[in-house]
Amino acid sequence: MTHRIEPRSGVAFALGKGAELVVLDPDGGQVSDLVAYNAADVREVISNGRTFDYEETIRLTTGAQLWSNRSRPMLTILEDTVGTHDFLLTPCSVATFEHFYPDKPVHQGCFGNLAAALAPYGVTEDDIPTAFNVFMNVPLAADGTLRVDPPTSKTGDFIRLRAEMDLVVGLTACSAYASNGGTFKPIDYYIRDHADDR
Amino acid sequence: MTHRIEPRSGVAFALGKGAELVVLDPDGGQVSDLVAYNAADVREVISNGRTFDYEETIRLTTGAQLWSNRSRPMLTILEDTVGTHDFLLTPCSVATFEHFYPDKPVHQGCFGNLAAALAPYGVTEDDIPTAFNVFMNVPLAADGTLRVDPPTSKTGDFIRLRAEMDLVVGLTACSAYASNGGTFKPIDYYIRDHADDR
Repeated sequence: MTHRIEPRSGVAFALGKGAELVVLDPDGGQVSDLVAYNAADVREVISNGRTFDYEETIRLTTGAQLWSNRSRPMLTILEDTVGTHDFLLTPCSVATFEHFYPDKPVHQGCFGNLAAALAPYGVTEDDIPTAFNVFMNVPLAADGTLRVDPPTSKTGDFIRLRAEMDLVVGLTACSAYASNGGTFKPIDYYIRDHADDR
Repeated sequence: MTHRIEPRSGVAFALGKGAELVVLDPDGGQVSDLVAYNAADVREVISNGRTFDYEETIRLTTGAQLWSNRSRPMLTILEDTVGTHDFLLTPCSVATFEHFYPDKPVHQGCFGNLAAALAPYGVTEDDIPTAFNVFMNVPLAADGTLRVDPPTSKTGDFIRLRAEMDLVVGLTACSAYASNGGTFKPIDYYIRDHADDR
């Protein structure tokens, strides 16, 4: 069953060890911020730094794992039709809206959406790390400067990940102007459990 | 007064708002992992993601600020005689020693040293973020792959930072083989308070 994340919103859900999560861009050009926690202890959380350490790259695609702050694999990327994601930048928030879009209405952003969706799992705002920003297109210049371009994802593009432990996952349809070229679109996802194989 | 951080060890100390911290490489070629917390609430902590967001670069040097997970400036880089630091990789730890140096003795690393030094301030292991790795030399290839090279810092090179809020700072002389080319050396630091100006 495919679930839709409406534009500028977010969800949270359990993802059991071995289950697969497919994050799909239904209209193309949209970003989805993904965070993950150990379901048994939400202080264990995905870490861009540990992932960069162990994967020895900042560009994560098929075959890469997303690691926790406790140096354990949380998710493995099994399939990826885009190949461009970001793990450098944090979820958009009231503060980032005020900073980057001072003339536009402030939105709680992916950060506020994640905080609200994850609160029932005991996750506080301070527990929200740098997200794995699915489909986000952040080119880096040779001098280290970065910019945020619209995603290259097209309708139907997706990434498929396997949970390597029992997880709580937070997932959004991004709310910021830059990350999706100013077009706020939905994100679709579905979960493929072991049971589906029977 | 200059303090010495002995090889493969770490310290923690208070740094009041407006005070300046100088981290100095006495012998050249050594790395110092730096973490910072709001002294009034250690759940507020330096964040590589928020820093990359607001500075729009992953290469931080003079003029840049290091931001917290709550989108507030914690430190400003006032002077920097090296210009090469890393904010991508996490402190070396038992897990990273086992991963990268399976044939070498395991060390608690900067992570263990920071955890021990910061415990009296109420900081737990899970509160230790990706550090700002002073003098660490992590070249990135165009495809995003990274490697760890010896620092380019020479004897006497330093970075000078100003605290933008009352902080608790953790600081190490790095314990990993790759980051300092296998030579474990000390790090020096000193604090310049407002009082020094009188």
